[in-house]
Amino acid sequence: MIDVAIFGAGRIGKIHAGNLVRQSGVRLTHVVDPDAKAAAGLAEQHKARVSDTEAVFKDAAVRAVVIASSTDTHADLIERAAASGKAIFCEKPVDLALDRAKRCAEAVKRAGVTCLIGFQRRYDPTFAAAKQRLDAGEIGKPEMLIVTSRDPGAPPVEYLKRSGGIFKDMLIHDFDIFRWILGDEAKTVHATGSVLTDPKVGEVGDVDCTAVTIRTKSGRLAQINTTRRAAYGYDQRFEVLGSKGMLQAGNHKPTEVVAWTDASVSQDKPEYFFLERYRVAYALEMAHFFDVLATGATPRTSIDDGVKALELAEAATTSWREQRLVEL
Amino acid sequence: MIDVAIFGAGRIGKIHAGNLVRQSGVRLTHVVDPDAKAAAGLAEQHKARVSDTEAVFKDAAVRAVVIASSTDTHADLIERAAASGKAIFCEKPVDLALDRAKRCAEAVKRAGVTCLIGFQRRYDPTFAAAKQRLDAGEIGKPEMLIVTSRDPGAPPVEYLKRSGGIFKDMLIHDFDIFRWILGDEAKTVHATGSVLTDPKVGEVGDVDCTAVTIRTKSGRLAQINTTRRAAYGYDQRFEVLGSKGMLQAGNHKPTEVVAWTDASVSQDKPEYFFLERYRVAYALEMAHFFDVLATGATPRTSIDDGVKALELAEAATTSWREQRLVEL
Amino acid sequence: MIDVAIFGAGRIGKIHAGNLVRQSGVRLTHVVDPDAKAAAGLAEQHKARVSDTEAVFKDAAVRAVVIASSTDTHADLIERAAASGKAIFCEKPVDLALDRAKRCAEAVKRAGVTCLIGFQRRYDPTFAAAKQRLDAGEIGKPEMLIVTSRDPGAPPVEYLKRSGGIFKDMLIHDFDIFRWILGDEAKTVHATGSVLTDPKVGEVGDVDCTAVTIRTKSGRLAQINTTRRAAYGYDQRFEVLGSKGMLQAGNHKPTEVVAWTDASVSQDKPEYFFLERYRVAYALEMAHFFDVLATGATPRTSIDDGVKALELAEAATTSWREQRLVEL
Amino acid sequence: MIDVAIFGAGRIGKIHAGNLVRQSGVRLTHVVDPDAKAAAGLAEQHKARVSDTEAVFKDAAVRAVVIASSTDTHADLIERAAASGKAIFCEKPVDLALDRAKRCAEAVKRAGVTCLIGFQRRYDPTFAAAKQRLDAGEIGKPEMLIVTSRDPGAPPVEYLKRSGGIFKDMLIHDFDIFRWILGDEAKTVHATGSVLTDPKVGEVGDVDCTAVTIRTKSGRLAQINTTRRAAYGYDQRFEVLGSKGMLQAGNHKPTEVVAWTDASVSQDKPEYFFLERYRVAYALEMAHFFDVLATGATPRTSIDDGVKALELAEAATTSWREQRLVEL
Repeated sequence: MIDVAIFGAGRIGKIHAGNLVRQSGVRLTHVVDPDAKAAAGLAEQHKARVSDTEAVFKDAAVRAVVIASSTDTHADLIERAAASGKAIFCEKPVDLALDRAKRCAEAVKRAGVTCLIGFQRRYDPTFAAAKQRLDAGEIGKPEMLIVTSRDPGAPPVEYLKRSGGIFKDMLIHDFDIFRWILGDEAKTVHATGSVLTDPKVGEVGDVDCTAVTIRTKSGRLAQINTTRRAAYGYDQRFEVLGSKGMLQAGNHKPTEVVAWTDASVSQDKPEYFFLERYRVAYALEMAHFFDVLATGATPRTSIDDGVKALELAEAATTSWREQRLVEL
Repeated sequence: MIDVAIFGAGRIGKIHAGNLVRQSGVRLTHVVDPDAKAAAGLAEQHKARVSDTEAVFKDAAVRAVVIASSTDTHADLIERAAASGKAIFCEKPVDLALDRAKRCAEAVKRAGVTCLIGFQRRYDPTFAAAKQRLDAGEIGKPEMLIVTSRDPGAPPVEYLKRSGGIFKDMLIHDFDIFRWILGDEAKTVHATGSVLTDPKVGEVGDVDCTAVTIRTKSGRLAQINTTRRAAYGYDQRFEVLGSKGMLQAGNHKPTEVVAWTDASVSQDKPEYFFLERYRVAYALEMAHFFDVLATGATPRTSIDDGVKALELAEAATTSWREQRLVEL
Repeated sequence: MIDVAIFGAGRIGKIHAGNLVRQSGVRLTHVVDPDAKAAAGLAEQHKARVSDTEAVFKDAAVRAVVIASSTDTHADLIERAAASGKAIFCEKPVDLALDRAKRCAEAVKRAGVTCLIGFQRRYDPTFAAAKQRLDAGEIGKPEMLIVTSRDPGAPPVEYLKRSGGIFKDMLIHDFDIFRWILGDEAKTVHATGSVLTDPKVGEVGDVDCTAVTIRTKSGRLAQINTTRRAAYGYDQRFEVLGSKGMLQAGNHKPTEVVAWTDASVSQDKPEYFFLERYRVAYALEMAHFFDVLATGATPRTSIDDGVKALELAEAATTSWREQRLVEL
Repeated sequence: MIDVAIFGAGRIGKIHAGNLVRQSGVRLTHVVDPDAKAAAGLAEQHKARVSDTEAVFKDAAVRAVVIASSTDTHADLIERAAASGKAIFCEKPVDLALDRAKRCAEAVKRAGVTCLIGFQRRYDPTFAAAKQRLDAGEIGKPEMLIVTSRDPGAPPVEYLKRSGGIFKDMLIHDFDIFRWILGDEAKTVHATGSVLTDPKVGEVGDVDCTAVTIRTKSGRLAQINTTRRAAYGYDQRFEVLGSKGMLQAGNHKPTEVVAWTDASVSQDKPEYFFLERYRVAYALEMAHFFDVLATGATPRTSIDDGVKALELAEAATTSWREQRLVEL
């Protein structure tokens, strides 16, 4: 039986807790959250105990930690877990500061512990199938990638202030998709953005729509377009053009009903937001984490992936702010 | 805590067991199956005990039974459960003989126990959304229904011999869909069929492809087409035409990948078979059963629905055998 | 230069005239219509002369006639054209009476003239591609056919009175599709129908919705569903199931715009009605007629096809009226 | 009757000639092409005469010229036509040099003649419907535009040498789409490109894949991705995101057949290339030209549109060559 502690009993913490207790041979023993009520609720649901950071790291029986707490706690918890020899499942991002993230990666490597960063999109059945078929050569060599990544609505401005900006907060997933799908690293990054949905976003020094172009070391091209507000919902697609064809990874719909009326022929909008669209991905990601623990394999989304995506987010932020092409 | 006994530890029994233990306040206590190994396996997985029929009905703590055993045991178990005052979740069909099924329905009513028949398709998110939108008036009054119901491959001939024939074994679901969607009863039934996929089917007095037309009491029209073997997989669709439009309920796909190649633009085939397509439906159906127990509501799929669908299956069988229109 | 006379300067006559003058080496010389204004208009547009039946058949230069006049004139004109040795392009149906239609077919054969019946659907690019791929073996041997054939709105009741009833007037096209796609002849026909859209249809002894099932000599099954009023427009689809897969022939849309809004993801309704959907088919049909004249080939849609479709329409009418299965 | 002269009897010249002779009150009188055989063939087909440039401009009866000759002749012919007071229909681009194109625009304005530049995509039914619905406010204010523009195969290297480079030769259409759809002008342009399909393209100083980002004066964002070689054919799509939704303008398919097999569910590839996809657009564009002549309206695609698109192509070329953001 593997004992696991979770940091964070909020929305995403609950998802991860629910998924980890479904793994055979795994149980949740500690729940840590500054919000005592949230901690108690989650602990009770899974027959775990409310705990604190010190208790977790002192408890030798805890073999793995799930870090789903606020972003500013990630780096400390990663380093402590590494120092304690505990396996780590950490939500993105590693940290908002690239230097700090790199130090975390070093600490993880020194300690030799397993560390999986929660880029859950790589576990999405549609995205993973596209990647697998690409790797199997179905469309030849990849040449271009177009990523569309749009949220149904912007988070509160208070959140935006502490988010690190749209490139680190939102596009970090898209940068990871870029690296994963093209299997290549960026040579140059160009990013631009605008405030089109809500002037308050601009007041806190951020943008709500972005357009990014990446050219890779081997000359492949990627374009990413994002917005904080797509009126029709959560739009998560990419298409990869290869020398022999194209693979498109599309949105998921709640149902397969088609309505034919005097006005049009219509289908469902995409699933509402990330908790719906990536429900299966979150479950598969957690299963993968414990598979990795059992087999000693390398996680599909490592801490290095977390660092590299952050590197791209920094470059994009610079490109946008300074209105110039950034070379990596 | 509601104690539940399950009859049948085979493929569908495992599905139901897995779903019922996920209901809060519910536990599986008895597993009954003539196959001792299957019973032991399922019991162990859910910390229940291997049991037998007598023990189940003597155990006053058992408040509900799930009947997922072979068809010829359904009627006896329903009657015993009714006599013992236990709630009943029973796989379709109630029985292969209409008389016997009617007696079961009477027994259930006399006893006043809850009885849900496993027409799981009514719980499918796509089918249920279509029904809900129809009821909400989105396409006006329903006029015509086209049901396409095709299996990816025929069961073994040994199974077919004891199946009651394709109309009772396979189309019983489609007859239920017909009654549910049109909200009307059949006045006349015409059925025809052929042996087109495997001559052995004909040797046991059955057909493997059918075409059924039903005219309802209020003049609505329904057509059902089925085959035991669709090379592209499990095809489960219906479309209902109303005075103001049409609703189509389509297949579900494993992923939303689209491949564009020199040959074509292609998508996934439908999900493989009923366990995949109706995975969510089975879970929702079981949740509904325990909601009904908690609230005293009427099950969405009652034993009367089981009887009515069987009535249609008998009429269709007669129409096919005697090559004539059958009036109900 | 081939001189052609057209009978009928109405809606469909104009379409045929427009298509025939685009054939190289072909010119329209005579326009015959009891409506003098319509005749004059069409004649002027194509630099032909207003004429009458006698003049057409006396004019030895007229090598081909296009019969697009009212149904009750078809048989006479076919017989006169055959007697005069002129090639015949005739709109469906040959006649409303099966006997008369058969006599026409005999007259055509005796005279040895080319006669093409305007089952334009066989020339539709989508339908023709489906047929070609079926014949090429892409889905193995055909087993079942589902035809959906729905009009956007019923014609005036005055028209219905003289139409011969829905089976001869509307389903005659679908019976032709059935014979063409399955490449087989009917053994039994079952038809039913209802008045669901307008009670006036019933008052003239007709129905507005039908459901037909045909079993072929080799045991293949076909179902046809039709309505005079689909609120979403002209719905023209079929799907053929074969031993190795299925081919669906779908509707055509005016544009490929997809709108994603807060309400749904929607596309265009089908093209409005037969003049829009079969615009290309009408052009290809006329081109085929003159190809046949040039090469002496057999028309893709012969007068025998017209007779056979009528035979099915009569059987269906009987089945519906007498509420019984009809054997052919 | 309007007499028209055409310059260029090649592939696109034939298309335009075929469309112009279908306009009522219009006839083709002069065909000019250095390839005598091509000129003779086209002239004969439409009962025009083979002619030369001098004869065209001396013939006062010629009211309009269609310029479909090689790019290096456009500017001269525009200026001569303007000087002669003849209406002008000219294929894109006006000229490869921006200065020269601007001088043409001035000449046209001074002369007050009608001049339509052949950006045929604006006349495509799908693209035009998207634009119309956008203008009607269906998705609120436009915010982002994604243009996908991919050819099925690269032209010969000899062609590329004289083409002005991919931005002027191929993306000029996409720059026009950008201006038309967003109804806004570029403030900054970033372009990058690669040679991924054929090294010979690089040897003549060009690229075969590009990724362009434009930020407009009002902060809207546009991304364009192009390749000379999409293995699955001619891919012509755009999607425009607005404050209330998204409109996608998709590819056209030859037929609406869907094939369901053991391997996948597949549809047709897009129509082969621009002559197929834009067949209707070319016809509507020519009809529009003569409507403009009749009514004195402003052409939907004016010479100023030609100049502005060229300006963007120059900026993109600079951005790509100098690897920097270009401000307009």
